[in-house]
Amino acid sequence: MKRSFIREILEAIDEETISFAGGLPSEKLFPAEDIKIATLKAMENPKIYQYGISNGINELRTQIAARYTKEGFPTTKDNVLITTGSQQAMYILAKYFEDKDITIEEPSYLGAMNIFRLNHLKMEGVKLENDGVNVEAFENSFKNTKLTYLIPDFQNPSATTYSDEKREKIADIIKKYDGILIEDSPYGELFFDKKNVSMSSKLPKNSFHLGSFSKTLVPSLRIGWIRADEELLKSLMIIKESIDLHSCGISQYILTEYLKDEKKYEKHLQDIRDDYEKKANFFSEQLNLIMPEFKHEKPKGGMFLYGTFGDGIDTFALVQECLKKKVVYVPGNQFYIDKIPNGEIRFNYTHSTFEQIEKGIKLIKSCL
Amino acid sequence: MKRSFIREILEAIDEETISFAGGLPSEKLFPAEDIKIATLKAMENPKIYQYGISNGINELRTQIAARYTKEGFPTTKDNVLITTGSQQAMYILAKYFEDKDITIEEPSYLGAMNIFRLNHLKMEGVKLENDGVNVEAFENSFKNTKLTYLIPDFQNPSATTYSDEKREKIADIIKKYDGILIEDSPYGELFFDKKNVSMSSKLPKNSFHLGSFSKTLVPSLRIGWIRADEELLKSLMIIKESIDLHSCGISQYILTEYLKDEKKYEKHLQDIRDDYEKKANFFSEQLNLIMPEFKHEKPKGGMFLYGTFGDGIDTFALVQECLKKKVVYVPGNQFYIDKIPNGEIRFNYTHSTFEQIEKGIKLIKSCL
Repeated sequence: MKRSFIREILEAIDEETISFAGGLPSEKLFPAEDIKIATLKAMENPKIYQYGISNGINELRTQIAARYTKEGFPTTKDNVLITTGSQQAMYILAKYFEDKDITIEEPSYLGAMNIFRLNHLKMEGVKLENDGVNVEAFENSFKNTKLTYLIPDFQNPSATTYSDEKREKIADIIKKYDGILIEDSPYGELFFDKKNVSMSSKLPKNSFHLGSFSKTLVPSLRIGWIRADEELLKSLMIIKESIDLHSCGISQYILTEYLKDEKKYEKHLQDIRDDYEKKANFFSEQLNLIMPEFKHEKPKGGMFLYGTFGDGIDTFALVQECLKKKVVYVPGNQFYIDKIPNGEIRFNYTHSTFEQIEKGIKLIKSCL
Repeated sequence: MKRSFIREILEAIDEETISFAGGLPSEKLFPAEDIKIATLKAMENPKIYQYGISNGINELRTQIAARYTKEGFPTTKDNVLITTGSQQAMYILAKYFEDKDITIEEPSYLGAMNIFRLNHLKMEGVKLENDGVNVEAFENSFKNTKLTYLIPDFQNPSATTYSDEKREKIADIIKKYDGILIEDSPYGELFFDKKNVSMSSKLPKNSFHLGSFSKTLVPSLRIGWIRADEELLKSLMIIKESIDLHSCGISQYILTEYLKDEKKYEKHLQDIRDDYEKKANFFSEQLNLIMPEFKHEKPKGGMFLYGTFGDGIDTFALVQECLKKKVVYVPGNQFYIDKIPNGEIRFNYTHSTFEQIEKGIKLIKSCL
């Protein structure tokens, strides 16, 4: 099995290359000073250095639970399992559902697809439309698999967000067949307009809701979580424990300190949204100006802009040319189960400067 | 599948209970002040907050490699993969060798056995003698499995250390059948007398050597590593990446800063060895004094003291009584593939005070 295109590219490119490839947050938005203050405070407690419990420290789980409850999804710390990034959350679930069939969106998150392959899940793709998966096709697949992996908020890669109507319809189908939803929501907080209601809140007994601090605070803490029914969570414990005993204790205590000041966190989130919205708008404008043949919708949140040149251009071949000119993106075929080349591209707009965005798009245009 | 007895016990017992169960390091030996200094230094570099590369940051891998080279085992950073504790190292390897047969020591590390079960490896146990596994039995098993998991230094649970002669003989067998050794060495640095030569250094192309900072510095950083041939390591990358993208970046940068002062680390290691040796000696003396029917050898390193009451006592039944009197240990049957009750016990001696050791042994004696 091959490694992820994105991880390989990230590790191979030099400093000069303009990268629209990874899902990197903007470094200038990292609240470095506040994290340092939280760290010093956390380090007053010598307990932070010892082994901890596998599901994560109580204070952090309580803080995460409180955010769900506040949004109208009643949650206690017993519904929360701390994971080493939401990547690990996905891995734990894939291991738990090893060998099963699973319904996914197409296109979908490359990292999840690799995890499913590694754990021998058989993926069935359902076409993603502008407002979520095609409902009929979803039901046709789900009635057999009874397991689905969806990214309803500002999807990776397509930036698609499910309409309220589709959220209801999909939740109803999952209920109808008493199946399981894995709802991945690393970008839920990065909305430009409004926060969406999670599908999991309509299915508290039949869902795993995945969250992360990697996109909203800093990735290197490697802290994410799974929110689920307590009994469902318990069945994951043996896997979590086997994989790394527990997630980094120091990261968990730093986060706990940081999150104590709710207003500060809210302001920080708003700063990110404002910054990313400007970037998304600029990226879209520049595309329309420089490369109007690339059709796309302006993102409403998240970190990605997705679109297509149409069938005439193979973006997988194109990216090899782009790499020579020191600009890189992820070709759309990477997000499909069969990986047949197509004209689609995923652009990350959060990590580059305005100058790099303009320059990078011009470089791609010159490769056409 | 059941969770680990040790993790469940650790999470269930109250503050009053004297625990000889876990493999907890002594908290008073954590170099909290030095870690804080290293943290502040690390946090001057804003790079520490961003996503990192999957195999770990170069500086830390270089530092770990240098320690191997200094001990006569030539190693570069390309031979080192950073993992989220050595627990994850084990998990990655078990996933890589999924469904295979594997030769292990009996008794062996419970956590590893759970990981092997989870990844459908079929374990074959070989009796551990005072100086390592029985060579003939090992060869009989290994010639078929061609894969083995061994803990040659101050083994968990038995505290056994392989003689130089057995290290040679076992390495020769592994070479003869061109098989693979997974050498787990979390306790290698915790010697009271001398550091042993790793078996992996005799088999650089056929071995994975696992190390950890959990026992020598602090567990909550969750940083361990795999040392292996570069090509072997590459084949693990897809699994590492799938499990958590990369290990906690902040922990890695803190460690890098801390390890820059080699002399400080060496002094710290010596402090641990001195403290643990006193504890081991005291534990052994108290056992001989209070409960002479428990036969054991005084440990020469590591964190555990192992012994037996003989066949007349079922230590798995006994521990239920002990729990009521607020003292706990791990019964020997937990470390065997079939878990049939026996008269053996693993005691951790590093985490309790001298007073607790004496009191705890008296409480156990009162349950006999």
